[in-house]
Amino acid sequence: MEVKLASAYGFCFGVKRAIEIAEEHRNAATLGPLIHNQNEIDRLRNNFNVNLYETLDEVKNNDTVIIRTHGIPRKDLKDLKAKDVKVINATCPFVTTPQQIVKKMTQEGYCVVIFGDKEHPEVKGVMSYGDDNVTCVLKASELEDIIFKKDKIATVAQTTRKKEEYLEIVNYLIIKYKEVRVFNTICDATFENQDAARKLSKEVDVMVIIGGKNSSNTKQLYMICAENTTSYLVEDENDLDPDWFKEKKLCGVSAGASTPDWIIQNVVAKLKEF
Amino acid sequence: MEVKLASAYGFCFGVKRAIEIAEEHRNAATLGPLIHNQNEIDRLRNNFNVNLYETLDEVKNNDTVIIRTHGIPRKDLKDLKAKDVKVINATCPFVTTPQQIVKKMTQEGYCVVIFGDKEHPEVKGVMSYGDDNVTCVLKASELEDIIFKKDKIATVAQTTRKKEEYLEIVNYLIIKYKEVRVFNTICDATFENQDAARKLSKEVDVMVIIGGKNSSNTKQLYMICAENTTSYLVEDENDLDPDWFKEKKLCGVSAGASTPDWIIQNVVAKLKEF
Repeated sequence: MEVKLASAYGFCFGVKRAIEIAEEHRNAATLGPLIHNQNEIDRLRNNFNVNLYETLDEVKNNDTVIIRTHGIPRKDLKDLKAKDVKVINATCPFVTTPQQIVKKMTQEGYCVVIFGDKEHPEVKGVMSYGDDNVTCVLKASELEDIIFKKDKIATVAQTTRKKEEYLEIVNYLIIKYKEVRVFNTICDATFENQDAARKLSKEVDVMVIIGGKNSSNTKQLYMICAENTTSYLVEDENDLDPDWFKEKKLCGVSAGASTPDWIIQNVVAKLKEF
Repeated sequence: MEVKLASAYGFCFGVKRAIEIAEEHRNAATLGPLIHNQNEIDRLRNNFNVNLYETLDEVKNNDTVIIRTHGIPRKDLKDLKAKDVKVINATCPFVTTPQQIVKKMTQEGYCVVIFGDKEHPEVKGVMSYGDDNVTCVLKASELEDIIFKKDKIATVAQTTRKKEEYLEIVNYLIIKYKEVRVFNTICDATFENQDAARKLSKEVDVMVIIGGKNSSNTKQLYMICAENTTSYLVEDENDLDPDWFKEKKLCGVSAGASTPDWIIQNVVAKLKEF
């Protein structure tokens, strides 16, 4: 059977970069899981002795500590740097950008609106670069009761949000305030994987989506593909059932944003045997 | 018959202010007509000897020259100031604002997009405060072929444009560029008159709209009211026909943006006699 990979799949730029950084720092520890994939965390521990700390308290003298792609709140970074440790910052550059924008806009006297989930680690980090004039919302309607102290608003978005929803929020502000400085900090990676999977699923006889069964972005890829063709969700090559591919000539493959490349390669190799 | 004025009608803030300025400067001349209403221009000439120059060439030494609400291009202002004249700037503050924004944003290295009609005197003036990086459009589709030299865009709007159309343009830019600095320079005056006329026309037996028969904003007021009640368009009290008001108990009154208050008062006085 012929196998065709989607034109975009798996890790985004920031995660690929963070894993390369981890591989370059044997015996280091990441603060929080580097990626939502246990196989990859195990591989980093087994092959590179990269360990995992859940909290700052676990950090010991002389440690090398890797900050993950989401970034961390400003105070945590300061506390970490105050310790006798080497800090390796693997914060995704697409996350560093909104952090720095919030810092600069706060300094310049803007009220800042962040479009995102205030409980998400990325947003917690971004928020921490502002002051009391930072507001975090998920919907324009949440802005209705807020009276901003200034007529100058700056906006940033959590990198994984939808642009259409961001526009609803900024449009609400543009109508009401004299100046709205809109920074488009949304990263296209998630949507590129979805668009590529959608396109490929229309061309093939069957689709295989690789990713954790608890991964919401993997499930979303599966649902997109299932609209167009018979689709299967697998965690690795061991989940593949030869019966699925009887009389199939072309199999498409996509993978969730936390699926490592080596798992994808194993799946593709086995599919080609069918 | 009872007469009720709309809650907003006639001159906007900027025009009222410009006329007061003209009245305070006897023997001055305006550069271009101060208002699109011949009665008012005649009144200023007859009562205050305020004259009208169509071009800069007509300006003579020792003249006092009044710049009208729309403003003038930067170079014209410079040329005027170089002459031996006293310059009185009656540019509406709501027009000075976008002029200054275009100047500042150009200095700060932004590409500037103006939403407006590039042939309109106000827009010509606003554009003149920028450089080659200023673009003027009326629709988002006009932006498709433009490649901006920078990833930072600032936007302003002609004061009389519709907010919904401005949002279409800024939304197009927000999706494509990293930073879009949106200045809401639209003035609500035109829409306040329309909203007030619409509301009043639903309450009354008959509406009278006062304004020049060539004035597009007066005609628009007439059409809005005619949807709700019998409506008449008059230039002054001489156009009123008593037959229109037979058996009518409550007459609503609105006026176009270039209709002077003294004409409105004359019409209202005559209506009350019916």
